[in-house]
This record gives sequence, C-alpha cells and structure tokens, in this order.
Amino acid sequence: MRRPSIGVFDSGFGGLTVLKELAAVIPAADYLYFGDTARLPYGSKSAETVARYAVEATHFLQQHGANMLVIACNTATALAFDKIVRAAQIPVVGVVEPGAERAAASSKNQKVVVIGTEATVASHAYLKALQARGVDVREKACPLLVPLVEEGWTEHAVTEQISRIYLQEAFGDGFQSADVLLLGCTHYPLLKTVVRRVAPAHIAIVDSAEATAQAVAELLKFKPPPTPSADERRQFARIKFFATDSVEKFRRLGGRFLGQPIEDVQHVDLKE
Amino acid sequence: MRRPSIGVFDSGFGGLTVLKELAAVIPAADYLYFGDTARLPYGSKSAETVARYAVEATHFLQQHGANMLVIACNTATALAFDKIVRAAQIPVVGVVEPGAERAAASSKNQKVVVIGTEATVASHAYLKALQARGVDVREKACPLLVPLVEEGWTEHAVTEQISRIYLQEAFGDGFQSADVLLLGCTHYPLLKTVVRRVAPAHIAIVDSAEATAQAVAELLKFKPPPTPSADERRQFARIKFFATDSVEKFRRLGGRFLGQPIEDVQHVDLKE
Repeated sequence: MRRPSIGVFDSGFGGLTVLKELAAVIPAADYLYFGDTARLPYGSKSAETVARYAVEATHFLQQHGANMLVIACNTATALAFDKIVRAAQIPVVGVVEPGAERAAASSKNQKVVVIGTEATVASHAYLKALQARGVDVREKACPLLVPLVEEGWTEHAVTEQISRIYLQEAFGDGFQSADVLLLGCTHYPLLKTVVRRVAPAHIAIVDSAEATAQAVAELLKFKPPPTPSADERRQFARIKFFATDSVEKFRRLGGRFLGQPIEDVQHVDLKE
Repeated sequence: MRRPSIGVFDSGFGGLTVLKELAAVIPAADYLYFGDTARLPYGSKSAETVARYAVEATHFLQQHGANMLVIACNTATALAFDKIVRAAQIPVVGVVEPGAERAAASSKNQKVVVIGTEATVASHAYLKALQARGVDVREKACPLLVPLVEEGWTEHAVTEQISRIYLQEAFGDGFQSADVLLLGCTHYPLLKTVVRRVAPAHIAIVDSAEATAQAVAELLKFKPPPTPSADERRQFARIKFFATDSVEKFRRLGGRFLGQPIEDVQHVDLKE
C-alpha cells in the first residue's frame, strides 16, 4: 500500500493529542497538521462560522496532498462533519463517532457522561451518536477547562476544584449510575490525571483521541509492527505543521500537547 | 454641534463595558458597536492578525457613518493602535492612554500594577504609556479571568481564588508598595467586586473603561447635563449592534456586559 498522507485539522493545539495517538498507532505515514490558531477557539462560535472555517482547512489540506482527513476537533466534527464530507474528495474521519463507539462499548450500564466545549454540547452530536447505540447520555459543557490547559495549570489545585464542580453536576441528579466519562474535547487528555482523581472511582474514562486513532488504523487496515517502543514508532511518522497565527506560539504551546518538541511550523494565511 | 456618531469596536463583548460608560457620560450620541465575535478572543493572537482584524472593523464602522472611533479593546489598542490610526479617516481613541493617564494620576507612590490578557501584557503598551509618565510598572497576564467572566462566574469562589493567586504574584516581590491596580482588560470591570475583596486594602482600582469614556467626552468637549439619573441618561443614547458570529449569543452574553438588555443585533460577514 502507498504510504498514506493524513491531513489532521483542528482549530488550534488540541488536535495534537489526536496526532500524537495517530503517530503512535500508524507511524508509517506522512502527516499534515493544520491548526487554525488565528481563529481559535471554535468552541464558542456558531455552526455556520465553524463550518466555513473547517471547509477552508479541508481544501488547504487536500491541495497539500492529503489523501485522508482527520477532523481532530470535536467542535468542527460536531458542527460541520456533513459539510466537510461534502467539501472533501477524500475519506474523512471525525472524533465523535469513534469516541461514541468506544464509550458505548465500555459502558455496562449503558449510561455515559460526555464533557466538552459549549458548542460541542449545544450541537448534541455525542448525544445523537450515543442514543443511536441505545445509550443514555448526559452532556455537560465545561468552558473553563480549555483555558486552564492553555494556562498550563494541568495539575493545579484550582483545576481540580473546577473539574470537581463540573463532574459533580454531570454525575448528579439521575446520573450517579453512569459508568463512563467520555472526554469530548481534544484538550482534555492533558487533564486525565486530575479528572481521574475527582471522577467517581467506578467510572471508565474514554478518550476520543485514542479511539479516533484506532478508527483511522482500521480504515487503513493498518497493522502495527510487532512491539516497537513508542519512541521508535514515533520516529517514522513524518509531520508537517501549518498554523494561521504565530508559529513561535505554536511551537511553544504545541509541544505540550504533542508530548514532544515541535520544530518546523509554516505560517498560513487563509486570505480573509 | 452635530450629534456625534461614535463607532465602538471590540473583539467581542468586553467593549460593551466601555460602551456602557460612554452612553452614561455622553448620552446625546449615536453609537455603532462592532463585536468581532467570530474571531474572538484577540488576547491570545499575534499582533499581525489582530491588526488585520482591527483595520477591517475600522473600515466597516466608517462605512456605516461613524465620525469617531473608540477601540474598546485593550488587545487591539495595545497591538494595533498605530495601524488603526493610519487606516482611519476619523479621530481614534484607544483604551490604553486614558487608562494609563488616570492610573498615573491616582498613584501617590508612582507604582502601578496592570493586569490584562496575555497579548496586552506581551505588547507592553501599558508599561510604555506609564513609564512615559514616570511611573514604575508591574504587568501581569491573567488569561483565566476572561473565560471566568464569560462562564458567568463573576462572584464565584473559584474566581476569587484565581484572582488571589494572580494578584499575590502581581503585588509580590518588590511591588508591595504599588498603590494602584489598573484593569487593563474590558472584561475585568465585571470582576470589580471580587478584585476589590482580594486586592491589598490600600490600593485604588482604576478602570480603563471609565477613563476612556471621560477622554472621549473631553475630545468632544461634551458637558454632561445637570444631574440626570443614569437611566435617564442612557435612554438618549441610540445604539446599533453588529456582530460577526451568532446574534442570539451576542444578545444573551452582551446584556451582562452592557448592564441592560440588547435587542437588535445585525449579523455581519467580513468576507473572509
């Protein structure tokens, strides 16, 4: 099979947690990562605006050789998946369906709590995807978690306190028996330690980023080589980065999300 | 004098705290408020990007009849004031100079702490404006305060805790004797109660929004009528609202900043 060229799109840095999982699961690929940092965050914007931005990014990645597209952004997937699929001439994978699939499979009680940005929750994309699988769903918007991650307070006492407030509301009032927490935002994997500490002990935490990487591997019928180390595997993934705002900031902040230093970032002006 | 038509520009909702002060101080005016909500927040973006957006907004407001422009956005003032002045054919007032002027006048020790977004602080616009007035300055970026205001947690214990952390850092280490805190972000007037509670007791809080409204009144040589009530005064200001993202959200969130309900908002597409 031809070495795949996988376009990965996000409003900013969060999608790098998806890229990290992809590069670990499918190292023998080229990746084009597009972060629309000049217009982030998408989480507080309307469906029309997000769809317009996402379609522009889709065209950009196709023009630069992507033969597959991963929408590594919950908001863009939730608000604009159909429009992106119509605009793209290549296969498209979003983060919502893989996340919902894994959450449904992980829940014994068929009762799942989803946390995400305001826009993702308002779209009810996870609600619909999980209800279609017979799962009872509580959605909870957590608009402070993204800024806390971007402030770098991923282990801070304040972050723990805010997470506790959000999760108490989410798991209260009829949802005490939910047994899965689905992280419906690509920033949240950086908060896993804190979330694990404050979430009810019996629940499983499902991460859309991991689930999406697996879904892409299945689509490509990619079989990982026998037990290389994580470092060995990541070496083979060739990644190009594009950002619409400051490349210096992308390098600095992005490294935290990717879990490794980011060197070459190219600035892109989408001609607004 | 001809009734002034004052264009007021911000990345989103924060500038409404400036508009509120303007309408109270200069009620006999027409106001055009432009909130670039599709591309907010500016606080985390680069100078080039912010300048480009700000110049587009300037052209829009002029085309819609503004004969004076207030940049009711600390980030845009800090990063793009000169470019806006060059692009505009009308007088331009930003929030930085009036805020710095009042802070300098209020400080007995000539020692001021400024809090603002990451981009405002990185620009050192307040530092320069205050140093030019012989004032010693400490700048402190507080990136979580805007999301806390937008979450509606203006009186929340978590907001108090985060504000305390930020202010302890700001007033520590050589700045214990600072006697003025300058609110260098238009969202912060909504946090005045909390900030007053956690700030050192001896300090005066200076608000750029109030100072800017006074500066505009002086420029227009406007004298307020003898003691009408705030409600009476506000009735006379005619305000049109324009937003680049959802008008519904603008109405809902904006009312909190303006301190009164917002009815007619027109959606604007800046043709990106």
